[in-house]
Amino acid sequence: MATMVSNSLTKKSEPAVNSPTQVIGGHGIDSYSNNSSYQKLAANVVKKKIEDAIMMKLDVASFSSTSNIIRLADFGCGVGSNTITAMHDILEFVKKKYMSQCPASQMPEFQVIFNDQSTNDFNTLFTSLPQDKEYMVAGVPGSFHDQVLPKSSLHLAHCSYSLHWLSKLPKELQDKHSPAWNKGRIHYTSAPQEVLNAYATQFAEDLDNFLNARAQEIVSGGMMVIVGSSIPDGMSYSQVVNGLMYDCMGSILMDMVKTGSINEAELDAFNLPIYACPPGEFTEGVERNGLFTVEVIELMNPAPWLKGPIDIPVFVKHVRAAMEGMFSKHFSREDIDELFNQLVPRLSQISQQMKSCDRDGLQLFAILKRK
Amino acid sequence: MATMVSNSLTKKSEPAVNSPTQVIGGHGIDSYSNNSSYQKLAANVVKKKIEDAIMMKLDVASFSSTSNIIRLADFGCGVGSNTITAMHDILEFVKKKYMSQCPASQMPEFQVIFNDQSTNDFNTLFTSLPQDKEYMVAGVPGSFHDQVLPKSSLHLAHCSYSLHWLSKLPKELQDKHSPAWNKGRIHYTSAPQEVLNAYATQFAEDLDNFLNARAQEIVSGGMMVIVGSSIPDGMSYSQVVNGLMYDCMGSILMDMVKTGSINEAELDAFNLPIYACPPGEFTEGVERNGLFTVEVIELMNPAPWLKGPIDIPVFVKHVRAAMEGMFSKHFSREDIDELFNQLVPRLSQISQQMKSCDRDGLQLFAILKRK
Repeated sequence: MATMVSNSLTKKSEPAVNSPTQVIGGHGIDSYSNNSSYQKLAANVVKKKIEDAIMMKLDVASFSSTSNIIRLADFGCGVGSNTITAMHDILEFVKKKYMSQCPASQMPEFQVIFNDQSTNDFNTLFTSLPQDKEYMVAGVPGSFHDQVLPKSSLHLAHCSYSLHWLSKLPKELQDKHSPAWNKGRIHYTSAPQEVLNAYATQFAEDLDNFLNARAQEIVSGGMMVIVGSSIPDGMSYSQVVNGLMYDCMGSILMDMVKTGSINEAELDAFNLPIYACPPGEFTEGVERNGLFTVEVIELMNPAPWLKGPIDIPVFVKHVRAAMEGMFSKHFSREDIDELFNQLVPRLSQISQQMKSCDRDGLQLFAILKRK
Repeated sequence: MATMVSNSLTKKSEPAVNSPTQVIGGHGIDSYSNNSSYQKLAANVVKKKIEDAIMMKLDVASFSSTSNIIRLADFGCGVGSNTITAMHDILEFVKKKYMSQCPASQMPEFQVIFNDQSTNDFNTLFTSLPQDKEYMVAGVPGSFHDQVLPKSSLHLAHCSYSLHWLSKLPKELQDKHSPAWNKGRIHYTSAPQEVLNAYATQFAEDLDNFLNARAQEIVSGGMMVIVGSSIPDGMSYSQVVNGLMYDCMGSILMDMVKTGSINEAELDAFNLPIYACPPGEFTEGVERNGLFTVEVIELMNPAPWLKGPIDIPVFVKHVRAAMEGMFSKHFSREDIDELFNQLVPRLSQISQQMKSCDRDGLQLFAILKRK
């Protein structure tokens, strides 16, 4: 599995602020049925932080003095309303800042660029755009680890829940002679340090490529907003709900090897290309790259009110919707049915442990500025 | 039927140089089975004319002195290899011209922009792009009758077999009290002058909107290549194969009204939104608009070697592939089956007349330059 998983995997079914591990059952204040308003609240927290960053740190007037067009781009846009809403909000803040800086000037033109892999469903995205939009649109296919826009053509970049997808899996994970051989697991959760290091090294390389590419595209003084999966510095991934779940998935798949429904080599070749970078490591990566300054970096609670009993079957349904694509490249439909069917009782067995997991501070929020 | 038909209708199945009326049967020199090489030859004639225009009339050096990015766009790109091949060829000519003008300079960056309606299949287009392309790509959804790109951001525009699609049908065609009421026909072929005038007026308005939009986007000195359906000045559309066919379609549909399978009002509301503009009228439109100079305008033979007996069933099959979408918005699947089934014997009855039609000089080739 050397190809990059679509950036939009979790986005088609889930708003960015609600990772598939935070679905809560019942009908009370913490329930999934009330979740959409919570999601909105969570999104509003991010939105307010972006507004503050633009109002305080983005010199829109300087852009418009050299160009009559201001370009905003979403990297790893996926499909649906999240990217359209996010870019609409950001555009409103940029306009507000422009009006405060240049009250007597005519508004410049705006172009909103949507980037994702060429296999992304741009058709759905394009037909979902509002009819009365006050900006021009372009869809740009291609990996965001490469330059995809002309040099110095971009003023603000947004990247939400996309950087955690690794561009490829570290080779060592499948190398019997490497200490990072990840036999019997499908992720670095509960794995030896060498496995975690292999994932971290790949993430660092991807981040560096991403920053180099954006540095080509973004004008000096331009801003980058990054939101995504993270974990407090020093915390083990087995202490978070996603980690517990990946461990469960791995052990179910290994049982399926024992019963003969899955081939052992097939399972050995499978690892989840997902890495949640702690903020310290992220800052180090940006500083090592040297082309951006870190203006803001913090861990947020994606949804602090999401505390309460987890409705496991609902939870698994959502996990399946978000993750099935990753499994279907390696396993048969029947095997995947089996995996998710077994996941419900397995997670129920550890529901106390899941409940005790710290769900706070797993969302990275960062504002970078092009030097 | 007030919506614009997808620009890509004829392009999905047919290269732009081969309209659906030029499919020739058998296996001889004029056969459809040998057609792909003929199409290639026809495309090569256009290609050579574009090369000449770029080499003689495009000042690439002046663009690169003000911008390190040169942008090319295809308006009404459709899907598939035609647009990719055409834009690749044009890019090669621009590079060649740049190297001849600035042999010691570094090549600028290039961006190729693909525009079509937001309902176009951009997914297929994006996944069809070559892996090793030496240009950046953007897909821009939206009607080309409006501005879709930032001001003065474009250096060369290409528009092939797209302008003949009217943005809407003239209202008079359905107005019983108008002399342009098109009762009993589905096109201006064999219609009173008032019907032709209504089509021509709509085309002129569309062309003006198109030129105004492009004039916003294209830098001074930038070039526009236009290829499309045309007809010699003064020739009647009933003298060309497409015209004969539209008449046949109209009369079949009217017979279906008589037998009760189609509602009369349904047929009255249907007209083909297609206008083949003669070169004189095209030049007038550009001059009236006033924002571009006409550098080259001529009628070409789309494929002079396409002379010989027409294999009617094959011909109808291709016509159906290209035109079905237009009919399916108005008529049931059964009615459309009936229409195309009847078209074979009807056209066979007039095959001599079709053969005698002048198939030369039905392709407009124009080079415009932004003042």
